Amino acid sequence: MVTTRLPSAGFSITIRIAVTADASSIGRLTTCVGEAGAIVTALDVVDSDPNHVLVDLTCDTADSGHADQVVKQLEEQDGVDVRKVSDRTFLLHLGGKIEVSSKVALRNRDELSRAYTPGVARVCMAIAENPADARRLTIKRNTVAVVSDGSAVLGLGNIGPAAAMPVMEGKAALFKRFGGVDAWPVVLDTQDTDEIVKIVKAIAPAYGGINLEDIAAPRCFEIEARLREQLDIPVFHDDQHGTAICVLAALTNALRVVGKRLEDVRVVVSGAGAAGTAIMKLLLRQGVGDIIAYDRKGALHRGMADMSETWQWLADHTNKSNYEGDLAGAIVGADVFIGVSAPNLLTGDDIAKMAEKSIVFALANPDPEVDPREARKHAAVVATGRSDQPNQINNVLAFPGVFRGMLDVSAEEFTEEMALAAANAIADVVGEDKLNPTVIIPSVFDPRVTPAVAAAIRAAVRGPAQHNAAALPEVELEKAPEETF
Amino acid sequence: MVTTRLPSAGFSITIRIAVTADASSIGRLTTCVGEAGAIVTALDVVDSDPNHVLVDLTCDTADSGHADQVVKQLEEQDGVDVRKVSDRTFLLHLGGKIEVSSKVALRNRDELSRAYTPGVARVCMAIAENPADARRLTIKRNTVAVVSDGSAVLGLGNIGPAAAMPVMEGKAALFKRFGGVDAWPVVLDTQDTDEIVKIVKAIAPAYGGINLEDIAAPRCFEIEARLREQLDIPVFHDDQHGTAICVLAALTNALRVVGKRLEDVRVVVSGAGAAGTAIMKLLLRQGVGDIIAYDRKGALHRGMADMSETWQWLADHTNKSNYEGDLAGAIVGADVFIGVSAPNLLTGDDIAKMAEKSIVFALANPDPEVDPREARKHAAVVATGRSDQPNQINNVLAFPGVFRGMLDVSAEEFTEEMALAAANAIADVVGEDKLNPTVIIPSVFDPRVTPAVAAAIRAAVRGPAQHNAAALPEVELEKAPEETF
Repeated sequence: MVTTRLPSAGFSITIRIAVTADASSIGRLTTCVGEAGAIVTALDVVDSDPNHVLVDLTCDTADSGHADQVVKQLEEQDGVDVRKVSDRTFLLHLGGKIEVSSKVALRNRDELSRAYTPGVARVCMAIAENPADARRLTIKRNTVAVVSDGSAVLGLGNIGPAAAMPVMEGKAALFKRFGGVDAWPVVLDTQDTDEIVKIVKAIAPAYGGINLEDIAAPRCFEIEARLREQLDIPVFHDDQHGTAICVLAALTNALRVVGKRLEDVRVVVSGAGAAGTAIMKLLLRQGVGDIIAYDRKGALHRGMADMSETWQWLADHTNKSNYEGDLAGAIVGADVFIGVSAPNLLTGDDIAKMAEKSIVFALANPDPEVDPREARKHAAVVATGRSDQPNQINNVLAFPGVFRGMLDVSAEEFTEEMALAAANAIADVVGEDKLNPTVIIPSVFDPRVTPAVAAAIRAAVRGPAQHNAAALPEVELEKAPEETF
Repeated sequence: MVTTRLPSAGFSITIRIAVTADASSIGRLTTCVGEAGAIVTALDVVDSDPNHVLVDLTCDTADSGHADQVVKQLEEQDGVDVRKVSDRTFLLHLGGKIEVSSKVALRNRDELSRAYTPGVARVCMAIAENPADARRLTIKRNTVAVVSDGSAVLGLGNIGPAAAMPVMEGKAALFKRFGGVDAWPVVLDTQDTDEIVKIVKAIAPAYGGINLEDIAAPRCFEIEARLREQLDIPVFHDDQHGTAICVLAALTNALRVVGKRLEDVRVVVSGAGAAGTAIMKLLLRQGVGDIIAYDRKGALHRGMADMSETWQWLADHTNKSNYEGDLAGAIVGADVFIGVSAPNLLTGDDIAKMAEKSIVFALANPDPEVDPREARKHAAVVATGRSDQPNQINNVLAFPGVFRGMLDVSAEEFTEEMALAAANAIADVVGEDKLNPTVIIPSVFDPRVTPAVAAAIRAAVRGPAQHNAAALPEVELEKAPEETF
């Protein structure tokens, strides 16, 4: 592996240590931790007596093995007694990361009578008589299901529904933080396509949208297609569409930086799973010059054996010269490399053989397809999925705004037009005057991103849904009853 | 119908009215509303000029028809212009009654790194390696699914999943308000027993308990039984067990008031659906003297034709004399009447024929089996499900504490022992010194109820689950990392 893992907050530990209280004892602790390669971020005195001091030392480490090593080196010091090691990431997860809150006060009988029986019965009957009122009178108006079968969680693989929960809870927290969307984790103890479709269809009445998450390809394609067919709320597979939107946004700006046009460039994509397929479809929709797609079996080409339906479609629509050679060969003279696959497939020398002013998006996490430091020696623009490198391509830029916009106008489906609109909106957040090879994509904390994406989505909504738009202002209930029933 | 519907907050409306501004104009409005039988609860001036005033008049009405009548009478007044009528119950429901909140801050990159990638990956792997950790590291620890197919919602019948949502959201709000439990509405667009069982089983990994709600009998019995068999988290059907717990609690205290013992009394139960069946099973478990059960086809007795499995069981275990006559006949000389059925089945004269010091629980809502004012002329203790009568028997007394207790100790099942313990706990909240014919059950707002029920449940938990007890303190994350990982 060429990329060195650096200490990060994701691997922060707090070590409770008793030491003898001489003038330099605490200094020796921090020195020891520093020499072990960790970064001290906090030091709190918990207790003391005339001869001893008990401290909580918090430090970022590179990974679990490194954390163990740091603790071991501390224990080997004279006069040091390690009492306890707490992992701040685990502590933060105790009891889960989201909760259900009541938006209505239930202080007295009157409030109970309106929110529950007997008052609630009239609200139920109103929805029974006019089902469209569910979008006004229930959480459907602002709520999304984050659905996963736990079959392709992060880079961890098929770890199942229970182990997928921390990711889905995190996603729900991000939905609220960045988009004001109420999202709920729906993890499923089945990986059967028919059953997943049936279940999502059955639970759909409560939701205004479905976000599929971390479901393995090619099952994810069929599940998504069938749900789109059967549901009247938008279905969005973040691993596909969220990634594709962000990649197109970044590529749009990268092409601006190098002064090339999408229709003129040749793109090599490594990884023809959920993300890669969606990226390629969106690039083709936008009129990209040519693409060669790679997966474990090599370049997708016409005449290839044992292809899935999706791969066959890709082979039919990419690879104009029907190239069958290896990845290093395909990349020679290519303008753009997009990796959504596996670590360390390419070297700096490979990148050197790309066309002038080449663009490299090496998005495998945590270890990219090519060491970004090597890539930067030869490519004009380099992006990764890592938060410790410039140009991080992160789906948080897309999904909160996409759903915010779709919920705002009661959209009934997610469309390619919306994806293109969202990508352009993200790209345009980085003004022409700010654009350069290290800034092709906004920060996830840029507060302009979600509103811009949501506005683009609302504008892109077609069909009858748009007529519901803006019919649903937030009402200050006790103050200004502006809506009449 | 003998019971008069009184104005209530559940039918509160706000009427925006423009009137000419003479000295008595507003007085005429309130007089008009009062004469129409509504109760003015607020009067707010919205705007005025030298000759006019615009007011928001809020009043409680008896039902929708009555509200229309009130508005009509106002419109008929001279110089009165009704601009808008807003229904406060509907306004309160706009956008739904619950939301998802993040328990973790996501202010900066470090916090994002711990709550989401890359830090979250280690938490996922910990659960993959030790599935029991899901109860520590995810929302499973405190979260319950409120599952309904919308087939028997309140007294409204089979209104379907979308129209059931306001009830399920209300239930979730009550769970949080009264038990600190995170509950999430799961409404299902299917009424097929096999499918419901499959779906609930599939979504279960995220939850620490299942609360079935408003599912029609007899389907609810099979769904509950099969889920109990297949899941390692407690399954509780509130319409059955919640009602049975509250009825037993009320009956325990009512018997104390009249000085009778459960094993000596004869009980007539009207309604052998979900609630009635669960009530009878719990009374039998507690050694009740005898029961005669009624449903639409008459008294359940041995030799009755076309009985469901449940009714057959009831016929075999109740009705010692195998009485086949009508309800009015069965009640002659009975000590206790419990109605969970339909309005106005009995008159005061029927109640007069019961045994001395009789007990009447007429729980049909909103209109009881017998007018409680008539019943009180003859019975020693009368209870209803209505909030405007003494002795309201309300499930809110039971379910929040039952789940609070079960989640606290990671209970794997709900048992009859727990139901008995909960009933006793609720009964005992009303001290001997407070007990009288009008106070046999605590108020739903009595803050002692949920802690008492939860403590009783925790004490009643049997088996391996109890060893997990209290291993899960709430951790002040940044202050005192008491749990080690």
